[in-house]
Amino acid sequence: MTIDAAAARIMARCDELAAISALPDGILRAYLTEEHQRHNALAAAWMTEVGMETWQDAAGNQCARLEGREPGLPALIIASHLDTVPDAGRYDGIMGVLLGIETARLLGPHARELPFAVEIVAFADEEGARFGATLLGSRAMAGTWDPHWWEVADAEGISMAQAFWDFGLDPEKVDDAARSPEELVGYLEAHIEQGPYLEAAQRPLGLVSSIAGARRFRLAIQGEARHAGGTPYERRRDALIGAAQAVLDVERIGRERGVIATVGQLETRPGAVNVVPGEADLSLDLRAESDELRDAAWEEIHTALAGFCAQRNLELTVEEIHSAPTVTCSERLRRALAAGVAATGDAEPITLYSRAGHDAMAMASVTDVAMLFTRCEDGISHHPQENVMVTDVALALQALESTVWEVAREHGERAGR
Amino acid sequence: MTIDAAAARIMARCDELAAISALPDGILRAYLTEEHQRHNALAAAWMTEVGMETWQDAAGNQCARLEGREPGLPALIIASHLDTVPDAGRYDGIMGVLLGIETARLLGPHARELPFAVEIVAFADEEGARFGATLLGSRAMAGTWDPHWWEVADAEGISMAQAFWDFGLDPEKVDDAARSPEELVGYLEAHIEQGPYLEAAQRPLGLVSSIAGARRFRLAIQGEARHAGGTPYERRRDALIGAAQAVLDVERIGRERGVIATVGQLETRPGAVNVVPGEADLSLDLRAESDELRDAAWEEIHTALAGFCAQRNLELTVEEIHSAPTVTCSERLRRALAAGVAATGDAEPITLYSRAGHDAMAMASVTDVAMLFTRCEDGISHHPQENVMVTDVALALQALESTVWEVAREHGERAGR
Repeated sequence: MTIDAAAARIMARCDELAAISALPDGILRAYLTEEHQRHNALAAAWMTEVGMETWQDAAGNQCARLEGREPGLPALIIASHLDTVPDAGRYDGIMGVLLGIETARLLGPHARELPFAVEIVAFADEEGARFGATLLGSRAMAGTWDPHWWEVADAEGISMAQAFWDFGLDPEKVDDAARSPEELVGYLEAHIEQGPYLEAAQRPLGLVSSIAGARRFRLAIQGEARHAGGTPYERRRDALIGAAQAVLDVERIGRERGVIATVGQLETRPGAVNVVPGEADLSLDLRAESDELRDAAWEEIHTALAGFCAQRNLELTVEEIHSAPTVTCSERLRRALAAGVAATGDAEPITLYSRAGHDAMAMASVTDVAMLFTRCEDGISHHPQENVMVTDVALALQALESTVWEVAREHGERAGR
Repeated sequence: MTIDAAAARIMARCDELAAISALPDGILRAYLTEEHQRHNALAAAWMTEVGMETWQDAAGNQCARLEGREPGLPALIIASHLDTVPDAGRYDGIMGVLLGIETARLLGPHARELPFAVEIVAFADEEGARFGATLLGSRAMAGTWDPHWWEVADAEGISMAQAFWDFGLDPEKVDDAARSPEELVGYLEAHIEQGPYLEAAQRPLGLVSSIAGARRFRLAIQGEARHAGGTPYERRRDALIGAAQAVLDVERIGRERGVIATVGQLETRPGAVNVVPGEADLSLDLRAESDELRDAAWEEIHTALAGFCAQRNLELTVEEIHSAPTVTCSERLRRALAAGVAATGDAEPITLYSRAGHDAMAMASVTDVAMLFTRCEDGISHHPQENVMVTDVALALQALESTVWEVAREHGERAGR
């Protein structure tokens, strides 16, 4: 009953947060904006309500802490993010933060029995909607903030540094948000799956084995713009032909190798109906269960594209704009999560790898991480139709609470050894 | 010497016009813009300088007239256009207008001996850079203006009707630009070849047999935008995959059938690096020596694309945005142009068909038309590297002036019969 009421509250609060948006029709909450101020205020109130001490850290992350059996113990962090992509759904990130707060509520006075503190974090930027760079909140907390970001500007030309000042934060103090390994017991993150596998397997919950590290490239193809009517095929250097071949090769190689390879952006110039395209730029996003698989796919894609461009007398320029190593979840925390899921009645939980990036990737550089996936409808995410079932949310909450006690049990065993 | 000086002046004025542009680095002069006002003013000044009466017609075309042996006679029009594609060259269209003005200068007082008037027209839109639809200036003059164009909007959402008002023109008066067959003796247009054939044949000038009628389509492919990481291939409805297949099919079928088929524009949405594209729009431009060849190619392209889209669960929407029948040049005017070219020393001029559309196509619905092609460097057009030789321009001018007298001679013969 308590758990069901908590799950219903999570659903209602997801709706409440969805009303905080920079868009008139659709959800957008970006880093260091008015919406960020408002969702932090709401999260802080909810954290306070469950008896936690709250603060906003030096990067704008909203944090809360429940002490363990004595004050000042290292903390188990339960976290996710409250920022969104443009025209987002209402659960990606948000549900994980609210599950953390309800876990703290369930722990309540019993937290005093834990051999560690519990902290809940609502990260302020995971999606990168405003500045392009992603995982800004968790990178600050992991101490891996990139100083180059200060000069990165948003679409209106406002630099990250200026946005910090405007928000009431001091860029020079961003390192104060960083946590050290000694302060932490581990990091848990619950998140909607953003994929169709749990639903297809008819399982409400799943364990995450690893988080695929994406590599992203910008591929620029240079040919020659010429009059469409006057230029016979043998004289054309059509950049769009190269780009089209790339789009199809990327999909073919991705399918053959079991890798997820996507061209999400394609622009061609000059873009006139009667001019052979002289330039085409495309993006490539590559993810796989392991870095080896991913990198091998890239080699094949690059070779295929370079070969085609050479054959067509096109110039190919490749720029790698993002690269993250695949993060493997901690065995210890995965076992604890498995025990937590078992407590919901699923003794052999399904394990899958995360095709999407998460704050856990950043936090892995400072502590052990693990993730719990919750089934979502039709695998839809980053879209207004994103949906979860309240009954699945209740199971996730039950699993998380049990996981905390399992981490405590295992922590005691290790201490006893 | 007179001719060489005139050819040098044409080259210098092409450079002068090239400085009138909406782009900081590159040439763009679009319909009903400030650049249009400026090139009309310049052309009017040059027309006045050679003793012509000038006016801007109801569609924004800059016109000029030199009376024949009595005022008010039907006119032989010599014309081309001053608008450009984005990032254009400096001769396409422009050279033809300036050749007309220099022809009028050479005729000078001798025009009083002609059995017709000579008019020079600088059409205001041939390329369609702003509103997509092409030949707007010559369609207005031919009396074939399409009333649907009033609602067509430019990239900034400004309708054609609004653009008319903003330019100082009254949309309700566009029919005033229309000319009737009785007012006209014929239409001559000199233009750069925009292809490599004259250069390969080492001939400065060529006669045009027919102008291939283009058909243009907008192909819209609708899939579903989804998270790139979370959506396996079998669940994707990737609109860009459909567009890429279309680009390659169009080229393959064009090559196989000896037809010129080009995708010059491709846009995809939402255009995020980590989102499977949900929509893609592309343009298709089709040209061939005959309408039958062109239409058969379209049938095959349409069938291939519809099949692929059905297979991928993509929705295909086809809109035909332009269709022009192939225009055959008048035997009478071709003979006159052949005599004009013979006067330059080339007694057996080469004849070729125009793969590109020209204002002559529109004017063919109201009078006889013929075209003279001038060799251009490497067939390059619609590109900053577009180039012609001043010596070829001089030959074109000599040919045009001789052609006017040949038309007059033949006109007299017909009248005498």
